[in-house]
Amino acid sequence: MTVTVVGSIAFDAVKTPFGHRDRMLGGAATHFALAASFFDRVQVVGPVGADFGADEFDILATRGTDVTDVERIADGRTFFWAGEYGWDLNSRETLDTQLNVFAGWTPSLSSLSREAGVLFLANIQPELQRDVLEESRASFVALDSMNLWIEVARDALIDVVSRVNCLMLNDAELRQLTKRPNLLAAAREVLCWGPSIVVAKQGEYGATLVTDGSFFSLPAYPLETVIDPTGAGDTFAGGFVGYLARHGEEALSDDVLRQAMAYGTALASFNVEAFGTERVTRLTSAEIHRRVTELRDITRFEKAPVELVG
Amino acid sequence: MTVTVVGSIAFDAVKTPFGHRDRMLGGAATHFALAASFFDRVQVVGPVGADFGADEFDILATRGTDVTDVERIADGRTFFWAGEYGWDLNSRETLDTQLNVFAGWTPSLSSLSREAGVLFLANIQPELQRDVLEESRASFVALDSMNLWIEVARDALIDVVSRVNCLMLNDAELRQLTKRPNLLAAAREVLCWGPSIVVAKQGEYGATLVTDGSFFSLPAYPLETVIDPTGAGDTFAGGFVGYLARHGEEALSDDVLRQAMAYGTALASFNVEAFGTERVTRLTSAEIHRRVTELRDITRFEKAPVELVG
Repeated sequence: MTVTVVGSIAFDAVKTPFGHRDRMLGGAATHFALAASFFDRVQVVGPVGADFGADEFDILATRGTDVTDVERIADGRTFFWAGEYGWDLNSRETLDTQLNVFAGWTPSLSSLSREAGVLFLANIQPELQRDVLEESRASFVALDSMNLWIEVARDALIDVVSRVNCLMLNDAELRQLTKRPNLLAAAREVLCWGPSIVVAKQGEYGATLVTDGSFFSLPAYPLETVIDPTGAGDTFAGGFVGYLARHGEEALSDDVLRQAMAYGTALASFNVEAFGTERVTRLTSAEIHRRVTELRDITRFEKAPVELVG
Repeated sequence: MTVTVVGSIAFDAVKTPFGHRDRMLGGAATHFALAASFFDRVQVVGPVGADFGADEFDILATRGTDVTDVERIADGRTFFWAGEYGWDLNSRETLDTQLNVFAGWTPSLSSLSREAGVLFLANIQPELQRDVLEESRASFVALDSMNLWIEVARDALIDVVSRVNCLMLNDAELRQLTKRPNLLAAAREVLCWGPSIVVAKQGEYGATLVTDGSFFSLPAYPLETVIDPTGAGDTFAGGFVGYLARHGEEALSDDVLRQAMAYGTALASFNVEAFGTERVTRLTSAEIHRRVTELRDITRFEKAPVELVG
C-alpha cells in the first residue's frame, strides 16, 4: 500500500556532545519518508521555501519517494529548527523555531496522496491534521503530536486522535494528554477514545505497544555511540507504519504489529548513528534485517521455572 | 546455595499519590531477603534498634530467613528514612534520613553468614562493603550502591566494585560512576574493572544486563496501579541473585542470567503493588511463575522479514 505522510520538512541546526551541524535536512516528514520508503511507495506532503534546493529534493526522493506534493513557496523560507542536546542526549533544548513557510500553510493533497491506503499525520497543528484526514481516503491512519499542541489545542487534538487508528506519542506526552500518570492507564484511556493501537515512544528505553488485547514492549537497540537523536521518533514511525502498510490488506494481527515495532526500532537505531538523514540515506536492507535479528536476540529468554519456597 | 545479605533494615515513612505510611518496615536488606527467600536460605546481616519489635522480626524471617545476625542495639533506634513521590512516581524527594544505629556500626558475620556461597552487598558505605567482602567466603558476590557514595567515596566504591562478580546499579548512577553518558559504554567500562556482570536498573522501564558476550534488556511488568516503588530495586536484586544462587554450582550461563532477570522483574512488580513489604510478604510462588510467563508474552516477537527496497 502507498503511504502518504503530511508533516514538516525542515532545515535543522543541531548541537550534540559529538559535534554539530549548522544546517541540515530534517523535519518529521523527511525522517518518516526515508524510513517508510524501504517498505512502500511514499507520498510526501509539506511546504518548503525557495532555499530548498535540488540536493534536498534528491534526498527526500530516496528509494522512489514521490515529492510532487512538496509545495515550494517561491517567496518563503523553509521551516527552521535549532536545538542542543545535553551530556547524555536525554535532554534537549530548543534554541530557535522559525515557522517560515509553515505559517498559514494549508495542506492540499494530489489524488495520488489522497488515495494512498495508509496516512501518517506527523506532528503538525491538530486542525491541519483534521483537514488532511477529511480529505484522505486512507483505511489506516497513524498520528503523532507534541506537548505544544496538548497545551494550546488539547480539544482539537483529542478530536483528531479519536478518529485515527493509531496514536504514536512520547510516553510523557501520552501522560500529559490523558492526564493519567500511569502509562498503561494512559494508553487504555486513548483506546477508549477511538484508536485501536497506541504506541508510546520511550526514547533510549525503546517503545511500548498497547492494544485492546495485547501489550508489547521492546527496548531500543543498544548502541555505544549515539551521535544525534533528532528524528529518531519519526524514523521509528516510518519503519512501524511502513511495515504495517506492507500488510495493509490483511487484518493487523498482534504478530504483525510486534514485527512492525521491531522494524521501527531497528530503523530508529540507525538514524541516531549520524547527524540528520546522513545514516538512513545510505542504509541497506541487509543492515535492517540484521538489526531486527539482533533485537530478537537481546530480548529473548527461555522459561526455566525453579521450585520456589511458599 | 545460601545467600547472605548485608544492608539496611529500616523504618520508612512514605507518601505517594495513592496514600502514605508513617512508619513501615523497609530497608534494602529487608526487601532483598523477602524476595530471595523464595529461592534459597537467606542470612540477613544488619543493625536495628530497641524500637524493632517481634512483629518486624517475624516479617524479616518470612520463608525461613535467618535473622540471628540482625544485631539489636538496645540503646539505639532503627535507621529511618522518609520520602515523598511525585505525580508519576518517577521522581522522589528524601525528606529525612536518620542513620541511628547505622552510625558507627561495623558488620560482624556469624560463621553461617560468612560461609554462604552467595553474598549481596546492599547499598551501604563502600568501606563496610569491603570489610564484609573480606570476611565472606562467597563464590559469587553482587553489589548495589547509590549516588551519595559515588559523590563522597568514589575511589573506595570503585575498589570494592572491582572485586565483586556483579554490579547492580540504577542506570543514571552507572553513568555517574563511570563518567560515561552512554549506558552500554558505561557497563563495558565496569566490566573492565573486574565484574563479569553489570545490571542497570531502569525503574519503570525495566532492567538491562550486560556481560562480556551478551546484552539483554527486559521491560518492567506493566501495571495499571503502582502504589509505592520503595524497595523495588532491592526486591529485583533479591529475585535476580536468589535465582542465580539456585544455580550456584553451575557456571552462570547467559540463559540462567536472563531467567534471573525475569524472576527479579516479576518480584519487583509485586513489590510496587502495595506499600513497603505488604505485597511480597503474602506473595505465592504460583503468582511469581505466572508473571514470568506474562513477561515472556509481552516481549516476544516472531521474525517475519519482508522484502525491502534498497
